[in-house]
Order: sequence, then structure tokens, then C-alpha cells
Amino acid sequence: MGAALALAERGRGRTAPNPNVGCVIVADGRVVGRGWTQAGGRPHAEAMALAEAGMKARGATAYVTLEPCAHQSPRGPACGDLLIGSGVARVVAAIEDPDARTAGQGFARLQAAGITVTRGTRAEEARRSMAGFLTRQALDRPHVTLKLATSLDGCIAMADGSSRWITGPQARAHAHLERSRHEAILVGRGTFEADAPRLDVRLPGLDGRAPRRVLLSSTIDELPGWSAIPSPAAIATLPDIDHILIEGGAAVASAFLAADLVDRLLLYRAPILIGGGKHALRDIGLTDLAEAHQRWTHVDARQLGMDRLEVYERERNEA
Amino acid sequence: MGAALALAERGRGRTAPNPNVGCVIVADGRVVGRGWTQAGGRPHAEAMALAEAGMKARGATAYVTLEPCAHQSPRGPACGDLLIGSGVARVVAAIEDPDARTAGQGFARLQAAGITVTRGTRAEEARRSMAGFLTRQALDRPHVTLKLATSLDGCIAMADGSSRWITGPQARAHAHLERSRHEAILVGRGTFEADAPRLDVRLPGLDGRAPRRVLLSSTIDELPGWSAIPSPAAIATLPDIDHILIEGGAAVASAFLAADLVDRLLLYRAPILIGGGKHALRDIGLTDLAEAHQRWTHVDARQLGMDRLEVYERERNEA
Repeated sequence: MGAALALAERGRGRTAPNPNVGCVIVADGRVVGRGWTQAGGRPHAEAMALAEAGMKARGATAYVTLEPCAHQSPRGPACGDLLIGSGVARVVAAIEDPDARTAGQGFARLQAAGITVTRGTRAEEARRSMAGFLTRQALDRPHVTLKLATSLDGCIAMADGSSRWITGPQARAHAHLERSRHEAILVGRGTFEADAPRLDVRLPGLDGRAPRRVLLSSTIDELPGWSAIPSPAAIATLPDIDHILIEGGAAVASAFLAADLVDRLLLYRAPILIGGGKHALRDIGLTDLAEAHQRWTHVDARQLGMDRLEVYERERNEA
Repeated sequence: MGAALALAERGRGRTAPNPNVGCVIVADGRVVGRGWTQAGGRPHAEAMALAEAGMKARGATAYVTLEPCAHQSPRGPACGDLLIGSGVARVVAAIEDPDARTAGQGFARLQAAGITVTRGTRAEEARRSMAGFLTRQALDRPHVTLKLATSLDGCIAMADGSSRWITGPQARAHAHLERSRHEAILVGRGTFEADAPRLDVRLPGLDGRAPRRVLLSSTIDELPGWSAIPSPAAIATLPDIDHILIEGGAAVASAFLAADLVDRLLLYRAPILIGGGKHALRDIGLTDLAEAHQRWTHVDARQLGMDRLEVYERERNEA
């Protein structure tokens, strides 16, 4: 399942509106097929892995990060049917597909065909891996990541606006990798005017992965290569975008937080003090300190050169 | 040496102008004497450990965090003489005493008396442990620790000034423990007016360890129980204070940073976002982002309940 989860990451940010699934077929202790949802959503992970496995799939175990789909579409057959036809003996799945057209029916069809089904394996990681698809299913909007790059005292720039550089090259490269995992990047007017040409993915081999660019502004005319939305809530209207990365500046970050539309926080922190600079956030609508607590869970941290990345996720009891 | 370093911590914040030294005497693989500099500076660690060891010191090894003193004082004999008289065969010391009256002569006298001397064992930890004494010797001022308790976005309070609570009970208890390791706490006018009654050590068993209280203000008259100084640099004039803890608020913290008078930064961070609140720092005199780098080294981190403590030290090439 770990290998399937790693494969699933390859599609992240490129498969909307489909989930980024990973699949590994194991026969006699050997991997005979590997697949992941391809850019644009097809082929599905299972179809790709089964095509590679061919006859070796007979009697094998398929590890898949999401319940195989039960519904045919004009774009391809249901993965459940492909698995049954391949002769696999067992399917191990991480989570159930919340799509109403599958939602447990994928498992039921496999079991009706005599395939052993195990579910719930590494479910938490799978949920994190497919957060875009799951957020779209549950809340009908993209999964939102807010990126902040600050000094220890929470500044994103000096008072005169200079911000090159707060974080070092490793942290900046990591931020570019994160861009490649999102279908879209969103910025506000100030960042647009200062940085528009730079909102791409500058990593070897990933040049082609530049996300779509979205501007939060109600007063912008047609802008080649950009979409414009008037409010944070309007992200729900962006077609084929299940992951959106909010890059700045402070007004945009604060607007998304005030609307409670941030699901994940990437905090890149440099070991410096600025003092009296531009702060990462403005008013986010907090009326009492107690409200601020129990909202963010620390889920990951890593050292990036001199800097440190901390990842937090919004606690959502409804999710 | 680890045990000697742990004993040395007991005296921290109570031995000025003497160093807080730790000493362990080991004979035949067993600890026969333990000592640490007592409150007020006497007895010295070696005298206490040798008194416990008595005749068992003969042929033993003494582990001591600082070079034994070579100079007699009206308050007691030189530790070098006590060690020679005790018959120890070997002395293992962490660092040399920079005090001109000892500065290598302590080791020389031991060796002249036929004692084997090993030096440099766990020197870095010993330097950190005796930072107050060493800063006084090198820079003729106390060692300064700045404490900040912030949200992830660098706020120390909401816009209306409310700051109870940003950090949780474990972080606040740790901050009280830090108070007990300093001879003095310093605050500015705003914190004084809001919190003066609370600047004590509220931990079981440490009630008697409340540090002296210092106010940074040029306009304060006599104030019972308080000292007042007009500028950060005036900390050098405070008698018998080798460790001072700067507790707030933002103006005071920024004044000490602008004067480059902070040696150690304690950053307690709660996993919350405030946005648009009171920021930890104001202008600290930075004119270029490049200046901000290479100043702070991350030396420690620990989880305190939901919060995280990070400890940074100022890089001083001259030290």
C-alpha cells in the first residue's frame, strides 16, 4: 500500500475532477503491475496496473488507494469490472469512494465475484493523498493550501517590501515542488503586480507542470493566461481544479482564513528576526483567543537547509 | 561529566558573580562525592564534593565543569589546593576558567602536583551551562535571554491586548522554570503595569527562587522591590546579576535586539493563528535582509503540550 500511495502522488494536481489513485498488483510476492491515474483522469490507476500485469494478475492481490469504481463512463470501463475480469484473488483498498455512483458498490461487486476484499489499510494517508478529490466530494470546492514564508517573528517582508530572500534555496525549491502538486495557484493584486512572471515551477523536469494562475480581484479585465475570481468562495466555480495553492500576499491569506477556506498550512520559517516588517496576516475575524485554539493540527515538519517547514491541517469535525 | 553538568544547573541563576560549577568524584567506578556551587557562590562545587568524599577521594577522579580556581579568596581556599590536598589522582575538566587569576594556572598547579589533567570534555555543554559567568568575563555584562510567546503568525496578543492564553499550561510552567534560572527578570512599562504582581516563580518547591525584578524605564521613581534602568546597556551595572530574562513587551524586546544585547531566544509557539494582533517585535534596526541571516543558531526544541519551544543562540564570532 505504501508503494500505491507513492504512485498516487504522481497524479496529484493533474487528475481533477478524478481522484489521484495509485495501484500495485502483487503476485507471488513480486510486483507485476503498477499504475496511477494519468493526467486528465484517464486511464485509471487500476486499468494501467492491470494492463502491465496482463496474465500475471490471475490469483494476484491488487493494492489500491481508493475503492475501485463501480460505474462505467463513456471514457472507459469500471475498474471493478476490469479487476473481476483480470482474475485477481484479493483487493486491498485504503478508503471507500464517497462518489455516490460507487460508495461501497465497488466493494460489493468485487465480493459478489468471489474476490476477497480488505479495506481501511493506511486510510489516513490515503485521505491526505486524495484530499483534493475528497474535499470536492464533501464540500463541493477545491482543497486549499495556504503557503507562508516567514521570519521567526512572523514577517513576510521588510517594511519596504523587500522579501528576497527570507528563506533559502532548499525551501524555495520545495515550494516549487508544492506548486506542481496543485492545479492552480492563487495570488492577490500586490503579488500579481510584483511577481506575475515568476509564478511557475522552476524545477528540472517539472517545467511543464506549471499550475493555472488565478487572481483574487473583482476589478480585473480579461488577462491572458489568468483566471480572476472576486471572492475566496468563488474558488468553487473554477473548473477542473481540486487543489489550489494560495501564495500571497497578506490580504489574500487573511481573506481565505477569515472565510475558513484554508485546509492546509505550509509554513516555511527562516531562522531570522526582522522586526517591524510586513506581517504574514491581517485581521482574520477572530473575536476571542479561545476561538483560535483547536483549529490547527501539526502533521509534518522537515528541515530544508537552514529553514524549517511545518505543515498544519485544519481540524474539521464535519469531514 | 554529564552528572557534573546536571549538578551545575542547580546553581544557575543563584551564584553570581561566581560561576555555577558542578563536580563529581568517582572512585573505583562509584560516585563518592557530588557538589555544585551554592547560592551566593560558596562553597564551591569542588569543596562540597570533596567534603562528601572525604578519604575516598584518595586516588579518585574528579569531574568538574570548569577549571578549578587557583586563587585564594577571603571567602575560602583555592579549589586547586583542596584537590591536591585530597589526594585525587586525576581531574577531568570541561573548560578553562577565563578569570585572569586562574586562566590555565589551575591546571598547571594540579599537574605540578602530579595530578593527571584532561580538559575539553563536553566543553560546548559546559559553555552553555555557565553562559552567565562566561558572558560576564568576556563582555562585562549579564547573559541575556529573550522570551517570546507567540502564535504561528508571530502575535503576542490580540489587537485589544488580550493574551490569556496563547500558550498552554505546560509552556507557561516551563517559562516559570526558566525564571528560576535567572537572577533577574526585566520588563517594560506596559508589562509592568499589566503584570507586575505576576512576575514570580509559580512552581511547587521553587517559590523562593523568584528573581529580582528590573524595569526598563527612565522615568520611574523609587519602586519597592524593583530596580530601574534607563537603557538596555545599563544591564551591565546591575550588581550580582549574570543571567537576565527579558519578558516583554514588544518595545523592550525590540530595544534589546536593536542593541544586539540578546544572547539566547526562547520562542514558545502555540499552534494558532491570530492575524491582525500585536506583534512580537517592532523595528530592530535592520536595514537589509542579508543582515538578518547567520545571526541565530537553532540549538534546542521541545514539545510542551500543544505548544513548541524553540531555543536559538546568537552567533558571536568574538566569543
